[in-house]
Amino acid sequence: MSERVVLAYSGGLDTSVAIGWIAEETGAEVVAVAVDLGQGGEDMDTIRKRALDCGAVEAVVADARDEFADQYCLPALQANALYMDRYPLVSALSRPVIVKHLAEAAKYHGATTVSHGCTGKGNDQVRFEVGIGALAPDLKVIAPVRDYAWTREKAIAWAEDRNLPIDVSKKSPYSVDQNVWGRAVETGFLEDIWNAPIEDVYSYTQNPAEPRDADEVVVTFDKGVPVAIDGETVTVLQAIQELNRRAGAQGVGRLDMVEDRLIGIKSREIYEAPGALALITAHQELENVTLERDLARFKRQVEQRWGELVYDGLWFSPLKYALDSFIENTQQHVSGDIRMVLHGGRAVVTGRRSDESLYDFNLATYDEGDTFDQTLAKGFVQLWGLPSKIAAKRDLGK
Amino acid sequence: MSERVVLAYSGGLDTSVAIGWIAEETGAEVVAVAVDLGQGGEDMDTIRKRALDCGAVEAVVADARDEFADQYCLPALQANALYMDRYPLVSALSRPVIVKHLAEAAKYHGATTVSHGCTGKGNDQVRFEVGIGALAPDLKVIAPVRDYAWTREKAIAWAEDRNLPIDVSKKSPYSVDQNVWGRAVETGFLEDIWNAPIEDVYSYTQNPAEPRDADEVVVTFDKGVPVAIDGETVTVLQAIQELNRRAGAQGVGRLDMVEDRLIGIKSREIYEAPGALALITAHQELENVTLERDLARFKRQVEQRWGELVYDGLWFSPLKYALDSFIENTQQHVSGDIRMVLHGGRAVVTGRRSDESLYDFNLATYDEGDTFDQTLAKGFVQLWGLPSKIAAKRDLGK
Amino acid sequence: MSERVVLAYSGGLDTSVAIGWIAEETGAEVVAVAVDLGQGGEDMDTIRKRALDCGAVEAVVADARDEFADQYCLPALQANALYMDRYPLVSALSRPVIVKHLAEAAKYHGATTVSHGCTGKGNDQVRFEVGIGALAPDLKVIAPVRDYAWTREKAIAWAEDRNLPIDVSKKSPYSVDQNVWGRAVETGFLEDIWNAPIEDVYSYTQNPAEPRDADEVVVTFDKGVPVAIDGETVTVLQAIQELNRRAGAQGVGRLDMVEDRLIGIKSREIYEAPGALALITAHQELENVTLERDLARFKRQVEQRWGELVYDGLWFSPLKYALDSFIENTQQHVSGDIRMVLHGGRAVVTGRRSDESLYDFNLATYDEGDTFDQTLAKGFVQLWGLPSKIAAKRDLGK
Amino acid sequence: MSERVVLAYSGGLDTSVAIGWIAEETGAEVVAVAVDLGQGGEDMDTIRKRALDCGAVEAVVADARDEFADQYCLPALQANALYMDRYPLVSALSRPVIVKHLAEAAKYHGATTVSHGCTGKGNDQVRFEVGIGALAPDLKVIAPVRDYAWTREKAIAWAEDRNLPIDVSKKSPYSVDQNVWGRAVETGFLEDIWNAPIEDVYSYTQNPAEPRDADEVVVTFDKGVPVAIDGETVTVLQAIQELNRRAGAQGVGRLDMVEDRLIGIKSREIYEAPGALALITAHQELENVTLERDLARFKRQVEQRWGELVYDGLWFSPLKYALDSFIENTQQHVSGDIRMVLHGGRAVVTGRRSDESLYDFNLATYDEGDTFDQTLAKGFVQLWGLPSKIAAKRDLGK
Repeated sequence: MSERVVLAYSGGLDTSVAIGWIAEETGAEVVAVAVDLGQGGEDMDTIRKRALDCGAVEAVVADARDEFADQYCLPALQANALYMDRYPLVSALSRPVIVKHLAEAAKYHGATTVSHGCTGKGNDQVRFEVGIGALAPDLKVIAPVRDYAWTREKAIAWAEDRNLPIDVSKKSPYSVDQNVWGRAVETGFLEDIWNAPIEDVYSYTQNPAEPRDADEVVVTFDKGVPVAIDGETVTVLQAIQELNRRAGAQGVGRLDMVEDRLIGIKSREIYEAPGALALITAHQELENVTLERDLARFKRQVEQRWGELVYDGLWFSPLKYALDSFIENTQQHVSGDIRMVLHGGRAVVTGRRSDESLYDFNLATYDEGDTFDQTLAKGFVQLWGLPSKIAAKRDLGK
Repeated sequence: MSERVVLAYSGGLDTSVAIGWIAEETGAEVVAVAVDLGQGGEDMDTIRKRALDCGAVEAVVADARDEFADQYCLPALQANALYMDRYPLVSALSRPVIVKHLAEAAKYHGATTVSHGCTGKGNDQVRFEVGIGALAPDLKVIAPVRDYAWTREKAIAWAEDRNLPIDVSKKSPYSVDQNVWGRAVETGFLEDIWNAPIEDVYSYTQNPAEPRDADEVVVTFDKGVPVAIDGETVTVLQAIQELNRRAGAQGVGRLDMVEDRLIGIKSREIYEAPGALALITAHQELENVTLERDLARFKRQVEQRWGELVYDGLWFSPLKYALDSFIENTQQHVSGDIRMVLHGGRAVVTGRRSDESLYDFNLATYDEGDTFDQTLAKGFVQLWGLPSKIAAKRDLGK
Repeated sequence: MSERVVLAYSGGLDTSVAIGWIAEETGAEVVAVAVDLGQGGEDMDTIRKRALDCGAVEAVVADARDEFADQYCLPALQANALYMDRYPLVSALSRPVIVKHLAEAAKYHGATTVSHGCTGKGNDQVRFEVGIGALAPDLKVIAPVRDYAWTREKAIAWAEDRNLPIDVSKKSPYSVDQNVWGRAVETGFLEDIWNAPIEDVYSYTQNPAEPRDADEVVVTFDKGVPVAIDGETVTVLQAIQELNRRAGAQGVGRLDMVEDRLIGIKSREIYEAPGALALITAHQELENVTLERDLARFKRQVEQRWGELVYDGLWFSPLKYALDSFIENTQQHVSGDIRMVLHGGRAVVTGRRSDESLYDFNLATYDEGDTFDQTLAKGFVQLWGLPSKIAAKRDLGK
Repeated sequence: MSERVVLAYSGGLDTSVAIGWIAEETGAEVVAVAVDLGQGGEDMDTIRKRALDCGAVEAVVADARDEFADQYCLPALQANALYMDRYPLVSALSRPVIVKHLAEAAKYHGATTVSHGCTGKGNDQVRFEVGIGALAPDLKVIAPVRDYAWTREKAIAWAEDRNLPIDVSKKSPYSVDQNVWGRAVETGFLEDIWNAPIEDVYSYTQNPAEPRDADEVVVTFDKGVPVAIDGETVTVLQAIQELNRRAGAQGVGRLDMVEDRLIGIKSREIYEAPGALALITAHQELENVTLERDLARFKRQVEQRWGELVYDGLWFSPLKYALDSFIENTQQHVSGDIRMVLHGGRAVVTGRRSDESLYDFNLATYDEGDTFDQTLAKGFVQLWGLPSKIAAKRDLGK
């Protein structure tokens, strides 16, 4: 039997061409694996057929939408994961789930090698290869675009030479990666970081500047999991989809930022993640109500590290797993309702209620019912300030 | 000569009544000190005269607006200081500067004691007393509202008995603290955290939901200091004021959150800080462009700790000073322009340019001019993932 | 029925006197609870009888030695818990287990109040009361020594007046707290921090300066739990006891330090913890062999925070529980043998072996068998240094 | 004029052979640079002559001993820098100072390239190349051992072929790197991590197990700088040398550990650093006496990160510089005397005195003179525990 290579297949030019090219270069049979993460666009069956037409011996389509939502997006939500305090890790979350399907396919189809279409200056090559190293350390990796310096021009020529069923004429000016958690866009004119994005860049969100009526939504969480929207039970996938729709319609979730890539350069990125950002906004405020202060303070550090690890391709790593244990422990009381207004590009929390609330009206109120014993404060304040007071006495004495 | 007490005087009911009450209780002479931090409202001279009418032997008004902007707001901006990732420390920043003026006044007027009007369940008592302990550790502190259980009713009765020149009839439903960096509001009906704020709560910001034309602004920073707006040179104070006006007019900077107080309870707070939030948004993105990645990652931890310390009343503390040294070091290259659109409650960065930029077009571009050597990536990826791969080999072997 | 007070009873002067004093002051019945944590000294039954003789209506002795070792010392070992990088939390670990027994006794005996003999300037009052607040928030607390300014002189006079069965003549110059995890000593002449400790201070350890033969020991861990010593199966309690004996005989585990108390002052403390420090030394090195690098780096931060929380009385707190989850996750591969030489006050690791080792001879060796692919290094080094290189190009250009 | 290559020259086989090999391979002239960091061994002039004999066009010897002590060892001391809590960064500190001399020599001699003798599986290649990238980003780097797969056998053959003046017969079984801050040893039989080191491995330290008289030393610091030993003024270099001698004579400073290398593998390392560890021990305890608690707690995190950065080759990096600013700020009060006993492999602090002490006898003492107001404690304890108490009430209610 021939060697087999499992290829992460998107249906686009680069990976379509890669099928034949890998076969020719290596003599191996190519198994194409396409994973549905809610990215929309072409029908998955069309994609599967194209892979076969391009020479794949097998073409597999995996519907991983619920798996992605439950096992990848949900942990990110519970970590309030925002790389550089802003980016909800759209692409970074999708690579591990694709890797998992590649590793499984490699085992099932007896492949010795996997392949991806990433370049050598992005984060995704790291996420693919480090992920493969952690799930199937014996698999080899081929990255044609990076390791053999493929360019778009070469790929088009190759496709035309071999008459591959790919329409190479409709070149989009945008390089896009998208899934149910969000959408990432790069494009030439935005590589000048003084240029503003134009409306044409966006697809998941409406223009927030256009006047429209506000939308009010109540999201219900149970132990950190979104379980209902406006009282209707939802799966995690449905929660994201519904809020993509409703928050997207209000222009919520656009990002434009300069970002630190793992491979050491800065890049300019445009993102849209209406559902993700609306859910994180709600989840953060429910944590404000239900998490004890010291826990909340330390959790911010854990969240930052978690986001860095996932961004940096270390989803399947011992530290990531241990941080997951920490975060899981923190979610046991994160239950309740958050009411938000979605409007004009903003998701604004206007109300919260929870049986697990640590907000105590009687301790907080300045009106009737106040049970806080103010006589305790004097001693607290004195001892709280004692170390800096002792230091001040020393320093002022000079 | 009599003992003297220096009182932090706001002109309001509580501190007006405190003048006479402290004099009676202690036999001391009361020196009233009012500090102008750009809070607006009553004329400072009117406030000064009221203090004298209420029985102060001296009444001092200090115009600390530039001092507050340069020495308190600016470090907060450079720290991107947002307590709980959201609150720009409006009241927390003002207490240390008031404390400094109290301590100076106490020295100048030969006072042995200072006094403030804070309650025993808030953060500000801590900020006042820990601050005094650090600047003038030998001064005593009197806190009538807390230590003698003053209530509004008692204060009104006292004022009416003694015919003090205070209009006690116009009770606002809101408890407000404000200065040029922002405005904090508490009120009874918002102590039910399911209730949404109403438009009447706000004063620094227009309703973001109302349609209006967008405003575009360019903020210029020099080593972390905002020095020009739309090309016009400004002081830090002017930068804040100008953006309060323009961002406030677009409804930017409203916050509604449940917050962890230092004294151990959760409270619900409404803030408005249009200028502060617009400036922090611009400063963060300029740092994205000019700070090296590892530095930026660690600075986030420093920022969080800085915000906690300042929130917790430890402005004048050794750790705060050492974190200042760190932050100061980081600002040497934070120079350049940030263009923002202010609209519909959002301050959105649309462009950045800087002579100190670490964004390198030729390393970032996927088009012509690309100088990034992709052949380096393979080795990097392999060794980057080696620790988790070795761990995976062990763990999969079971 | 009378009110009942549960008293943490040590058998010493202060708590013996407290029995009668509490009864007189409050009219309540006093239930004395003594907890055996392996502190040695007097027979627990003698202590129990003394409590009754001093007027307790009930006197309970709890053998909590295994509970203390398994549920309090073991987590500290797994956290490599050393407050200020040195102190293994001897007293700090014991207070929560005593608190747990007090809370249970209060429930069982229908008490409304608990009492302890701590002063107002130490850490232990915080640990007792914060612990009680977390386990039984409705219980009241009486602290006679602190709240009623009891002194040793007053206590002796009280005991003599009432003819209590306590020998008040043999006053030790040392204030000691001890349990199986270690021993803490304070004494007047060491309050001058220039004075060196004298040999008389120590009890768990022999003088390390005396010549004697070295002792070699192999400690076996299974998932972070010490399960055998020199091949003999042990419980956690037995492991600590055996190493107290053997490491103590070699003078291992003495500490002399100036320490930051929670209540804001610095104090000078002498500790002995031969078993604890020998176990932590072994456990740390086994983690060096079995934990992945990034995990090990972050765990150090978790360890520091864990130690601070426990020192600061927050054993029963949400953050402590969440950190426990993190640490628990990290221990799954911490299995293997550590060989140590105990001698001259030092516990020195000389060998380690583990089926879970991440040390790979073939990757590490410079001799035959080397499997490390050095050609990967160049790309790694280049991209690893790229961010600081880009920054350098900018900074050198000035 | 020919191209020139500046080579980091040690005088040993690998770099002696590299001179001629680089010249042959590249046609360039080789300038050899040897840096004296107090490593002892051969006379530097002998080394210089050997370089010329091996074909260098220029051979430069730099006495960088004071520079190394003042600008590299001292910051490490002030950072209490111990990688993995144990290793004082002996080799890691020396590489940046060598790099600085290489970069300067390259500029002076008009070289376009630098070269080093490191392998591709160690840390030092990273430290050299990342350092060069930060100081002279336009220089190229040649690493013959790594990039051209040089082995010891090849090097010997080359040397014999060309009759180079190197004695290739006396092969030490040990691979050693040493300087005034310490000594690192690797050797084949210790690559089995169950094997114990033998006495023959050590050179800076006597056997701690041998009986001898103890040595007592007083180290005086001024703002974190060791300035006197037993009252005699010393430079930093002299302080290290004197303590290398005296602590080394007592067997202080041996380490045996499994360590995480930057390139992703674990290795087993033996170190000796008697002076470094004695100084760090003294400095840490002086900080315990003079640093405020919160500052000390955060400084531990900074110290860990500083150590990781320096270990990881990022001495010349923006984050390292910013951490330096933090640390520098903390040292302003670290002045005073520390008395230590050096004996039996241990450096034990027995006394500390400082005009900058924050230890306050009157607050700490339990005897006469106590000025601590214990009535403050109750309020402090109550509010300190309030968040966990509120959480407990919620959680117990289930």
